[in-house]
Amino acid sequence: MNNFDFPITRTDTPVPKPDMDKLGFGQYFTDHMFVMDFDDGTGWHNARIVPYAPISLDPAAAVLHYSQEVFEGMKAYLTRSGDALLFRPFENAQRSNNSSRRLCMPVIDERLYIEAIKALVREDYDWIPDREGTALYIRPFIIATEAFLGVRPSKKYSFYVIMSPVGSYYESGLMPTKIYVEDEYARSVKGGMGAAKTGGNYASGLLSQEKAKAKNCSQVLWLDGVERKYVEEIGTSNAFFAIEDKIVTSPLTGTILPGITRDSVIELLRSWDMRVEEDRFTIGDIFEAHENGRLSEVFATGTAAVISPVGQIMWGERSITINENTTGPISKRLYESITGIQTGMIADRFSWTELIPKP
Amino acid sequence: MNNFDFPITRTDTPVPKPDMDKLGFGQYFTDHMFVMDFDDGTGWHNARIVPYAPISLDPAAAVLHYSQEVFEGMKAYLTRSGDALLFRPFENAQRSNNSSRRLCMPVIDERLYIEAIKALVREDYDWIPDREGTALYIRPFIIATEAFLGVRPSKKYSFYVIMSPVGSYYESGLMPTKIYVEDEYARSVKGGMGAAKTGGNYASGLLSQEKAKAKNCSQVLWLDGVERKYVEEIGTSNAFFAIEDKIVTSPLTGTILPGITRDSVIELLRSWDMRVEEDRFTIGDIFEAHENGRLSEVFATGTAAVISPVGQIMWGERSITINENTTGPISKRLYESITGIQTGMIADRFSWTELIPKP
Repeated sequence: MNNFDFPITRTDTPVPKPDMDKLGFGQYFTDHMFVMDFDDGTGWHNARIVPYAPISLDPAAAVLHYSQEVFEGMKAYLTRSGDALLFRPFENAQRSNNSSRRLCMPVIDERLYIEAIKALVREDYDWIPDREGTALYIRPFIIATEAFLGVRPSKKYSFYVIMSPVGSYYESGLMPTKIYVEDEYARSVKGGMGAAKTGGNYASGLLSQEKAKAKNCSQVLWLDGVERKYVEEIGTSNAFFAIEDKIVTSPLTGTILPGITRDSVIELLRSWDMRVEEDRFTIGDIFEAHENGRLSEVFATGTAAVISPVGQIMWGERSITINENTTGPISKRLYESITGIQTGMIADRFSWTELIPKP
Repeated sequence: MNNFDFPITRTDTPVPKPDMDKLGFGQYFTDHMFVMDFDDGTGWHNARIVPYAPISLDPAAAVLHYSQEVFEGMKAYLTRSGDALLFRPFENAQRSNNSSRRLCMPVIDERLYIEAIKALVREDYDWIPDREGTALYIRPFIIATEAFLGVRPSKKYSFYVIMSPVGSYYESGLMPTKIYVEDEYARSVKGGMGAAKTGGNYASGLLSQEKAKAKNCSQVLWLDGVERKYVEEIGTSNAFFAIEDKIVTSPLTGTILPGITRDSVIELLRSWDMRVEEDRFTIGDIFEAHENGRLSEVFATGTAAVISPVGQIMWGERSITINENTTGPISKRLYESITGIQTGMIADRFSWTELIPKP
């Protein structure tokens, strides 16, 4: 089953595990990491698992200047039987390669990509938290490492996988959020790199996020960069709107990230005979639907929170409250179904999960 | 004059100087670098000059994932008297802070920024090359270093200055380039971070640059991200077009980099009583002006090449040759004037240069 046999250097100084009730997100890291190097002559080589440790980069490394890098995010979940499950890891591997193509970076064999992750999870298996709602967050990333200040694709790269045990996104059940419609700044534009999971898209969003925070909102709702009216994403998540008998979400036209949770949500909804439309719609359409009593639910989808119901939307001076600021039935059913499949509590009839038997 | 006294740790193993006739760009680095750290509690601290050496970063450092970073580019030139000159360093310091504001990063006192650069130039003074057209390229940059995977501004940063002796951009005088009009991909859009000097803008341009190369062109001409017709930049430079009795360049409306060479060119041209217009114009306008015999010169401006004349423009199936693919009189005069001021050969009546006396 596994033809990839990565050499492992084990740490002599394992880190004490953090308090599993206070994990938060992305602040604790496991004892080991996966590394693999690339240069133009050799291709990818020297795949290995080593102790989690600082990366040494030449001060002129391309990633530090021209942000040539891509990353992914996924989770490993502990099942009741003690085995672990990955959720659609092949989609992450594929998307990583798509991001790399946009950024002129070398692709990675998708089986190797997944086996690297599985090997690392096996190595730090006892880091997978077991509380409800917790998981082991996995962050594969590729950075350009050539020490050269000319602007062109790097000739050297490194691929890393690091892992972080993360807490439940919701301390006390699904909590509707308040979001803020950004009409000054843009996240991406057609022909840009909005469909790639790369740092620049996140760097450009930071300022709007701070604006949202100042308005007591937890996230930004992004509009398209051209006409500034079509709904694109919510923060770093995809956005869904239940309007009358259908659920709408923005189509994948190159400016938004093709979310894996997004895709799973669409497939689940359709399997429940619900009507899903991937079609452009404006923020005006949403406010109008609310006015006419046709907007019943809004939610965002992503790896971190899975489903994040939206209770309020602020757009300039206007503000609407959705479903009385409570979690709607579709959000709830989706959350329970997806997390159920992810943790092995619900039968996986879509073959979405990948088993990592308890070592 | 200098209240900034940075502690210096000198290298024990100075690097042999490269062949000054084969410097190229940004591939050799001097013996020392400037470093200063920031954290939310302390602010900027621990400014120091240390041996040029790899940077150690936690694998979760924000710059490696969310590309929160800004940089600058400038040059130190050796004068005949043996002193060195910086060209408008205050503009770089200011622009760096403007970039930082867009990226939610802490600003740096502009005098400290410049004194750091001057101190480093003094330390590695014998690295300033003396051949005509060569210079010491200076790369200040700030990276987010906090080890945290949540998407929000980092609480820790480091500011570095590294330096690289660079060769003449033109081996044998000004050489007109061939450029390619990009109408598929976009570099930036209004509300994006196009006016900031940050990695994401460069990462997003790499693929188009490869397309240009495949078409035998050296650079991309970028159109605006919204209507896909207004001329914005050429590669990583600003673009100028001489049409009849005036010279036009794109206005600074937030999507293009406010080039320091651009600003100097405008000021020089106006001092010569030439008409300069900062106004939007389309690629169609340019091709039409060529057709009517009104387009006499095209050139790009930037720190690396100073003035880069354009001899040919390809736009889809169409191609035009400008000024018989030779360097025009305006390009030539600007190049000689600016490099003359930069190297102290021409009187600096604009007070653009900053002297670093030979130590």
